[in-house]
Amino acid sequence: MRDQVEIGMGRTAQRAYELDDIEIVPSRRTRSSQDVSTAWQIDAYRFEIPLITHPTDAVVSPATAIRIGELGGLGVLNAEGLWARHANVEEALFRLFRADEDDDDPDAVIKELQELHSAPIRVDLLTEAIRQIRESGVTVAVRVSPQHAEELTPDLLAAGVEMLIVQGTIISAEHVSRGSDPLNLKRFIADLDVPVIAGGVGDYRTAMHLMRTGAAGVIVGFGESLASTTTQVLGIGVPMATAIADAAAARRDYLDETGGRYVHVIADGGFSYSGDIAKAIACGADAVMLGEPLAEASESPGQGYYWTSAAAHPSLPRSQVLQVGSLGYDLETVLYGPAPSAQGVLNLFGALRRAMAKTGYSDLKEFQKVGLTVR
Amino acid sequence: MRDQVEIGMGRTAQRAYELDDIEIVPSRRTRSSQDVSTAWQIDAYRFEIPLITHPTDAVVSPATAIRIGELGGLGVLNAEGLWARHANVEEALFRLFRADEDDDDPDAVIKELQELHSAPIRVDLLTEAIRQIRESGVTVAVRVSPQHAEELTPDLLAAGVEMLIVQGTIISAEHVSRGSDPLNLKRFIADLDVPVIAGGVGDYRTAMHLMRTGAAGVIVGFGESLASTTTQVLGIGVPMATAIADAAAARRDYLDETGGRYVHVIADGGFSYSGDIAKAIACGADAVMLGEPLAEASESPGQGYYWTSAAAHPSLPRSQVLQVGSLGYDLETVLYGPAPSAQGVLNLFGALRRAMAKTGYSDLKEFQKVGLTVR
Amino acid sequence: MRDQVEIGMGRTAQRAYELDDIEIVPSRRTRSSQDVSTAWQIDAYRFEIPLITHPTDAVVSPATAIRIGELGGLGVLNAEGLWARHANVEEALFRLFRADEDDDDPDAVIKELQELHSAPIRVDLLTEAIRQIRESGVTVAVRVSPQHAEELTPDLLAAGVEMLIVQGTIISAEHVSRGSDPLNLKRFIADLDVPVIAGGVGDYRTAMHLMRTGAAGVIVGFGESLASTTTQVLGIGVPMATAIADAAAARRDYLDETGGRYVHVIADGGFSYSGDIAKAIACGADAVMLGEPLAEASESPGQGYYWTSAAAHPSLPRSQVLQVGSLGYDLETVLYGPAPSAQGVLNLFGALRRAMAKTGYSDLKEFQKVGLTVR
Amino acid sequence: MRDQVEIGMGRTAQRAYELDDIEIVPSRRTRSSQDVSTAWQIDAYRFEIPLITHPTDAVVSPATAIRIGELGGLGVLNAEGLWARHANVEEALFRLFRADEDDDDPDAVIKELQELHSAPIRVDLLTEAIRQIRESGVTVAVRVSPQHAEELTPDLLAAGVEMLIVQGTIISAEHVSRGSDPLNLKRFIADLDVPVIAGGVGDYRTAMHLMRTGAAGVIVGFGESLASTTTQVLGIGVPMATAIADAAAARRDYLDETGGRYVHVIADGGFSYSGDIAKAIACGADAVMLGEPLAEASESPGQGYYWTSAAAHPSLPRSQVLQVGSLGYDLETVLYGPAPSAQGVLNLFGALRRAMAKTGYSDLKEFQKVGLTVR
Repeated sequence: MRDQVEIGMGRTAQRAYELDDIEIVPSRRTRSSQDVSTAWQIDAYRFEIPLITHPTDAVVSPATAIRIGELGGLGVLNAEGLWARHANVEEALFRLFRADEDDDDPDAVIKELQELHSAPIRVDLLTEAIRQIRESGVTVAVRVSPQHAEELTPDLLAAGVEMLIVQGTIISAEHVSRGSDPLNLKRFIADLDVPVIAGGVGDYRTAMHLMRTGAAGVIVGFGESLASTTTQVLGIGVPMATAIADAAAARRDYLDETGGRYVHVIADGGFSYSGDIAKAIACGADAVMLGEPLAEASESPGQGYYWTSAAAHPSLPRSQVLQVGSLGYDLETVLYGPAPSAQGVLNLFGALRRAMAKTGYSDLKEFQKVGLTVR
Repeated sequence: MRDQVEIGMGRTAQRAYELDDIEIVPSRRTRSSQDVSTAWQIDAYRFEIPLITHPTDAVVSPATAIRIGELGGLGVLNAEGLWARHANVEEALFRLFRADEDDDDPDAVIKELQELHSAPIRVDLLTEAIRQIRESGVTVAVRVSPQHAEELTPDLLAAGVEMLIVQGTIISAEHVSRGSDPLNLKRFIADLDVPVIAGGVGDYRTAMHLMRTGAAGVIVGFGESLASTTTQVLGIGVPMATAIADAAAARRDYLDETGGRYVHVIADGGFSYSGDIAKAIACGADAVMLGEPLAEASESPGQGYYWTSAAAHPSLPRSQVLQVGSLGYDLETVLYGPAPSAQGVLNLFGALRRAMAKTGYSDLKEFQKVGLTVR
Repeated sequence: MRDQVEIGMGRTAQRAYELDDIEIVPSRRTRSSQDVSTAWQIDAYRFEIPLITHPTDAVVSPATAIRIGELGGLGVLNAEGLWARHANVEEALFRLFRADEDDDDPDAVIKELQELHSAPIRVDLLTEAIRQIRESGVTVAVRVSPQHAEELTPDLLAAGVEMLIVQGTIISAEHVSRGSDPLNLKRFIADLDVPVIAGGVGDYRTAMHLMRTGAAGVIVGFGESLASTTTQVLGIGVPMATAIADAAAARRDYLDETGGRYVHVIADGGFSYSGDIAKAIACGADAVMLGEPLAEASESPGQGYYWTSAAAHPSLPRSQVLQVGSLGYDLETVLYGPAPSAQGVLNLFGALRRAMAKTGYSDLKEFQKVGLTVR
Repeated sequence: MRDQVEIGMGRTAQRAYELDDIEIVPSRRTRSSQDVSTAWQIDAYRFEIPLITHPTDAVVSPATAIRIGELGGLGVLNAEGLWARHANVEEALFRLFRADEDDDDPDAVIKELQELHSAPIRVDLLTEAIRQIRESGVTVAVRVSPQHAEELTPDLLAAGVEMLIVQGTIISAEHVSRGSDPLNLKRFIADLDVPVIAGGVGDYRTAMHLMRTGAAGVIVGFGESLASTTTQVLGIGVPMATAIADAAAARRDYLDETGGRYVHVIADGGFSYSGDIAKAIACGADAVMLGEPLAEASESPGQGYYWTSAAAHPSLPRSQVLQVGSLGYDLETVLYGPAPSAQGVLNLFGALRRAMAKTGYSDLKEFQKVGLTVR
């Protein structure tokens, strides 16, 4: 049974684990890495690698969404970020980076980001951005928050969006509100013709509830990274190894409950090195949502900076704008190598393929059963 | 059952947890943060936020006691600190800060603090300080040590104190002394017309004994902070997650024993970030006692320095005088934001409200049941 | 029973330990260190100390292989490293070290190493290198990868190799490949007249399978060191204390299964200090494979740099080229002292001898039973 | 029962704890610190504080042995250290400190110490040093190694030694040697008229065996400190909380076995702060052996440097010569305060007294039962 700890008299907490706490065990079989497939299919869409981008402006512009699609992954544009608010994003980003050079005010960069996000969302800009992606022929995916999902979605669909990511830091299938009328996800999804991925969640029950809304995929985690400060600010945490395994259990139970509906589990957060991608799949994830690891690619709009969309919150930001450096390598090298360094930050999916080969597995679904150790 | 560890043959220790060891789990429900109440009521006094200040001169002057009261919390002036001993506190603090600049003697600042505390307590100064607070209309609370409680209290009440905090680093309901006549808390409280909050304690039994003295609230912990060195100096420690949960169990048992007397549990220490406030409530605290997190507000008398009253002990100080920097933000921003940074040090109670909303709770009492994980 | 942890619903991981997690317990008996033997015998070969070198060019040249043999250990030349590819290795290493001085490109040194390894393996160079070692009279051992074992071995044997190390980062007895025809270790070993040591492995089952191929020794671990980044890159880890103990269990079971065939367990990785050597033997290893600890000897070709052969991988390097400094002490002092420092990096095997003496054991086999603690 | 961990198949280790892992729990009672006694009596000798010095030249000269005795503790001179080998120790120490300034050779200081210890032990110097201490009227105690105990003891007794400390890094009651004739502790002690304290040991069984030799006290640990590197060098470790508790269990069992012979448990090592002294007593120690914490006193011969006698080993030193700085406070202030700092390094025994008072205990023996937590 799951480890329940009594932290004080009559008060229990559940023992939980981060990806850092676990390691993959080699097994009695090895395999050629050429014989390994990292392919991932969700709904009608097939990808060479199980990669969705975290919807942050630091990583995803229309141009990088296209490039990531061409390289076999799925880029997700934030429909409530800078590309939705500014005609000249380049200039907006220039203001942001310049604010970081203000030595007198370490908070200047967050203030600038808040200011940039106080501009209204413009449908014309969104439509144009989506058009660019659509014309390239890659799968078109955008992220909306639960708050703005109903308002923005008609225009997004009209513009050609093929997959919708409904994502807040932490969401639930049951939002309670006395004042406004919150999003009813189940009804919302039922009315749509495109698949919806929703999250993030952190436990079995919420994952199960989201699966029952009809979502094609559920996001686990809230983009934990060096930049993210959610746990510091709110005290809320999602130890990823445990959260992924719990959501995978929900997937299994929901599959049984529905007699065959398979909802994908997408892990968002806790990825520092390529090895963490393999660990997330090993815990039960179908795909990974990467942000920070892609921020260093030369094409990324953040130009070496990384932040999540929570950095722009007007009163309680939960992400720093962090200079993560720039590797001087392009997205293709970040994803597929060849790597001229041994840090685990280049050839991310070549590393996944090799981890699978070295433990004898030939596809992602099988690899979810690989042996693990914990310290 | 509670985890008992045999650390050596026949010698056991109880497994205990710090706030850092736990995280709050999101649950299946979310809520609008407008629908959340952080209100706290103790005895006849109601506060917008569950905040008592740690009674240190680094944070509480008559002026900041007033400001904190206006902002919905409870400021506690130390009746044995600098405002009780020096007519010109500004000049005393100036001497203190200057001593810290003495590069030849790293101990100069503690020596100066000891020197400043060797001046006698003057009732006229105390009376004047209390009068200032009383005139502002906010709740008037002061702290006395168990040693000086009986001697100082008549004058304090005469000056208008409405709530008395009897606080030593570690206190008990049963002080044994051969020489002098120690404070009998039960008799002392029975004789008073104002509610008393007493502490700090670190275990179930002492919490229960203090509740039986008639205290309205019990303080758990001894103000653990970056400045505090109690554990280093004495070897005595109070892992806060466990201590709060144990005191909450005492509250529950005492409620049952008395058929309805609810004694508040106030957590003092271990607060580095706003998320720690949410964690303390989640462990069972009714309110938090903050020191260091408020030291950086621009109004704080410590001007970026923080120390607890234990720093002034004449022979065995147990707190450093630590430069914690200055944010350049006022108390209102520290408590309510908006935060232009993501570090978890601004908008402390906005963060609490949001943590409650994101886990679907609408008041503090309910939030004490939120799910927890431990690593 | 072994500790199985449920990291999430229905997903278990095995609790595992590193050498760092354990310590050796003194016992009721002590012994003179003169009465202790550190001798190790595998197949017909006897060594004064249980030392095999990790087959990295940073440590093993023909000259240091000879010196290590003279000092009582076994030097293993990498048959696929620089001595197999370059007539002038000195010049090749000079290019490598110079590349590290390139401040504009932190990856220059790995790129240079990849470039140096793109030169073809030359049998004439290998034959000459092996001839040098053979002529000195020490035991001649070389390492080949599983991929090149069949192709290179005839020439190696012809040149005079007496012991063959078949070593990849992680290998198995059952390599699955659709395209090429992988090495069948069992048939390969059966056809050879020289003993084979194979690895690395990380678990009981793979160790057992390798033992059944007829190997004289099995390598546990993959050379974990400050330079190695395998876990970061692949997510695969081999906590050494557990892995050694598991392989020792396989040795015991295989001994029983075969009615007396003793296969040696050789620990490769996790050695920072001399104390780690004693710990590895205490966990059940028969010998240790050292790399980094020898890199600092004045004779080592790496001249203060250390890397494993995985650093030269063309698309996914898993070792840095790390400047570990240079002690200015020769191999003899590194292995046998006297040590003029207390860091645990000199007199490595004098330390092992003393650890055995202080816990009352007289040979390595007995010392495998010494008491352990874990934190 | 004690926690046994299976670190690998069929290989167990015992879970063990350091002083750092535990904390003392406040209890329902407090006490005046004036009502607390820290007195300690062993054999016919009574001390105001439970303090024996670690026998290192960095701390104990004849002069500081006297001063420590005057202050209520027991100073132990190393009969095999510099005062036994050099007529002009001041000059010897000057050479040592100067060697540390040699930037070209970080090992110069250990080499100098080895060189200084290669001088022979001179009975005349020892006799003179002991005479000085004896004349002051304090208890005269010296340390000998097991190797030199029989040879040196007659002269030491003749010179006036009242208590003998037989101490090696790790010793046992059963030393096995083929060549020389090792010390038979039981016979050795039986023949002496003065009480003997022997150690260090790390487990229940060895402690029990040493108690049966007739020793008045048993030393637990081997002087673990920032300077000591025993665990790094040998892999042997003694987690102190567990080791003390185990030795205290041996004391209890031996007391029962003999119908009343009480052998003292003296904890040697793991003391960074005053709080660690309280923790050691709480685990069951009767007294503490301090080295490093005294090295910073202005009277200490090491003048801010600290090392243990293991630093001078000719082939395998197991202690650094470490600059621990100098506080500029004298021994009296280090032991009894008043402390003008809050770091836990001054007023060491005032802190012990206060820890006892704050948890309601009045003497050391009772304090061994205080509650503990472990993280």
